[in-house]
Amino acid sequence: MRPETIIEQTGDAIGPLDVQAAAGARARHARLTKPPGSLGRLEELGIRLAGITGAALPSIGRRVVIVCAADHGVTVEGVSAYPAAVTAQMIYNFVRGGAAISVLARRARARVLIADLGVNHDFPAELPIVHTKLGRGTANMAQGPAMSRPDAARAVAAGIRLAHRAARDGLPGGRRAGVRAGVARDTTLNAGAGAGPRAGRSTGCTVVGTGDMGIGNTTAASAIVAALSGAPARDVTGRGTGIDRPTWERKVAVIERALTVNRPDPVDPLDVLGKVGGYEIGAIAGVILGGAARRRPVVIDGFISGAAALLAVTLCPAVREYLIPAHASVEIGHRLVLERLKLVPLLSLDLRLGEGTGAAMAMHLLDDAVAVLRDMATFGEAGVAGPLPAAVAP
Amino acid sequence: MRPETIIEQTGDAIGPLDVQAAAGARARHARLTKPPGSLGRLEELGIRLAGITGAALPSIGRRVVIVCAADHGVTVEGVSAYPAAVTAQMIYNFVRGGAAISVLARRARARVLIADLGVNHDFPAELPIVHTKLGRGTANMAQGPAMSRPDAARAVAAGIRLAHRAARDGLPGGRRAGVRAGVARDTTLNAGAGAGPRAGRSTGCTVVGTGDMGIGNTTAASAIVAALSGAPARDVTGRGTGIDRPTWERKVAVIERALTVNRPDPVDPLDVLGKVGGYEIGAIAGVILGGAARRRPVVIDGFISGAAALLAVTLCPAVREYLIPAHASVEIGHRLVLERLKLVPLLSLDLRLGEGTGAAMAMHLLDDAVAVLRDMATFGEAGVAGPLPAAVAP
Repeated sequence: MRPETIIEQTGDAIGPLDVQAAAGARARHARLTKPPGSLGRLEELGIRLAGITGAALPSIGRRVVIVCAADHGVTVEGVSAYPAAVTAQMIYNFVRGGAAISVLARRARARVLIADLGVNHDFPAELPIVHTKLGRGTANMAQGPAMSRPDAARAVAAGIRLAHRAARDGLPGGRRAGVRAGVARDTTLNAGAGAGPRAGRSTGCTVVGTGDMGIGNTTAASAIVAALSGAPARDVTGRGTGIDRPTWERKVAVIERALTVNRPDPVDPLDVLGKVGGYEIGAIAGVILGGAARRRPVVIDGFISGAAALLAVTLCPAVREYLIPAHASVEIGHRLVLERLKLVPLLSLDLRLGEGTGAAMAMHLLDDAVAVLRDMATFGEAGVAGPLPAAVAP
Repeated sequence: MRPETIIEQTGDAIGPLDVQAAAGARARHARLTKPPGSLGRLEELGIRLAGITGAALPSIGRRVVIVCAADHGVTVEGVSAYPAAVTAQMIYNFVRGGAAISVLARRARARVLIADLGVNHDFPAELPIVHTKLGRGTANMAQGPAMSRPDAARAVAAGIRLAHRAARDGLPGGRRAGVRAGVARDTTLNAGAGAGPRAGRSTGCTVVGTGDMGIGNTTAASAIVAALSGAPARDVTGRGTGIDRPTWERKVAVIERALTVNRPDPVDPLDVLGKVGGYEIGAIAGVILGGAARRRPVVIDGFISGAAALLAVTLCPAVREYLIPAHASVEIGHRLVLERLKLVPLLSLDLRLGEGTGAAMAMHLLDDAVAVLRDMATFGEAGVAGPLPAAVAP
């Protein structure tokens, strides 16, 4: 199937949230032994998870962080604090389990699915990552388009496939052949309030987190956000891995040049992605679309994932309801992304690492939100008096 | 020993953080495979935990949330949305495991230690809570002091004892008699970088979270914060359990009256606690002091715990370094507390429940901070190139 057709069909498959399941969760929250609303956004999160999964008592089983990696031709302009070779070196670090995302995903009981979308390095075929290389890094966007429009569509379609794979068996490289739990999984997720078994019993992932690796990718993300929003480059460009002021000035100038040279069309996300994006950013947009099409909550990491989310929502506005924003990045462009998507992040830890680290940390809060809904006693069960009607705010 | 002497000796036992351990953690963070500082406040948290526990590679073992409960005579003024009987009813709900703190503490693998400091109800002696009742609720502070100064000191001393008990065996009611791991525990915690075994092996708690239960206690907390800070009552008074506007106006007037009637001395925290405080708030201040004296990180929950922290820091400024602020409450007075204590909370979830719920949720982040320090690979170990020196911000 043509990549653009895959994207279109995936967008068509993204339905609205299940309002009945969400209403069920909301009604249950009002009966639990606490002042209504007193758990704030944790309550909202539980209600949203109900709406996404279609169960008033949602459950969360296996979870995955999908880390999409690629290189960026724009690094020749000297926009990063690290050499481009670090992208490939970090993939090996992910595989060996020594990176921040390795550690934090273990803590969140999440698998890490690593995908090579376009790293400038030949990985051994037996390396347990998803080998789906679309090129050896993008071209330098300061001199012309980063990639062709068909490649941009291919990147998004590759991400959609990653989401389906994770939802099916959650493992890189299709190990666990023979496990065909995908259909049963979806049935469970949509079985309604408390009807099905706990989702955790399947091998497919019920929650998807997004992550990225790619030296130079904050430059691409800033260019995408500037192109889609019309904001000046310097208002959405940050210090990335920690560049000094002269390097930051150069980075802004490079993004301005890329926008002038390529003239990306702000209402055509594939045009923007192709001209000033990156393979891994397109793939993350695909992961988001594919995850939502499978009715999985998609936990959005920081700025790179945010730029991808902006692309995904521009491609298919219905996907917004499936996004769980993990944290507020230090990257200045992330603020604009969150505002435009009307998302309030769960964590505020001044992170600026990427890899899906914030998404992994936020997964604890998804577990908390679900546990409160499932396991707290109601006023009736506990024999606790409700509020004095006269004194409660309407 | 006199309660005031216990408080004084505990304050004297609170030493400065271990700067060598903190420097060791900071140095390790610079070698781990991520841009330095890119994990933001998670890095700072790890460094602080190193300084508190005295180990450059800190470890976190058993944890406890100490929930201090008491009733408030001021509820006769109609300042709460719930009847005062709910305080006792919720204690039974805690014991049965149906409350929000029960659920969230289980998720954080924390024990819940419940203490009756002054609930207006006779609990059966066999109920597995700490029975340390100082009265059957305070007197109505709108007409005179909530309690005597000696009772205020007794409340703080009771909290100090709770912290020691938790650090020793972590269990309510002294079950597990015969376990005397307290000394071994402290040795481990102070054994220096990575030298000791993992702290989790003892039965004593290595992390303390604070929690509260007491209908009417936001009224007392607001009065404490107004008294200590000099801020007008209406600037530090919120909607508590969810009161309507007329009830809020009454609540503000009641606090103003209490401050006028009692004239608490802003530089004498025991005077403030006695005149406009509560038994459980004093006990939480004691838990904070006792926890710090045992070199435990103390995770501070929301507004009630914040008011107690303000009392504790006024009693002993050195305790501030041991505080981990869990979250930013919706209660307006909490903002002033955090500003005065110069604490930036980890979570921002619009919570307003108390019980220690925010403290329990924040414990996942303590685990994350420790895991990153202990388990990530260094640049050298992973064969990842470091930054290009010329481009990095100093």
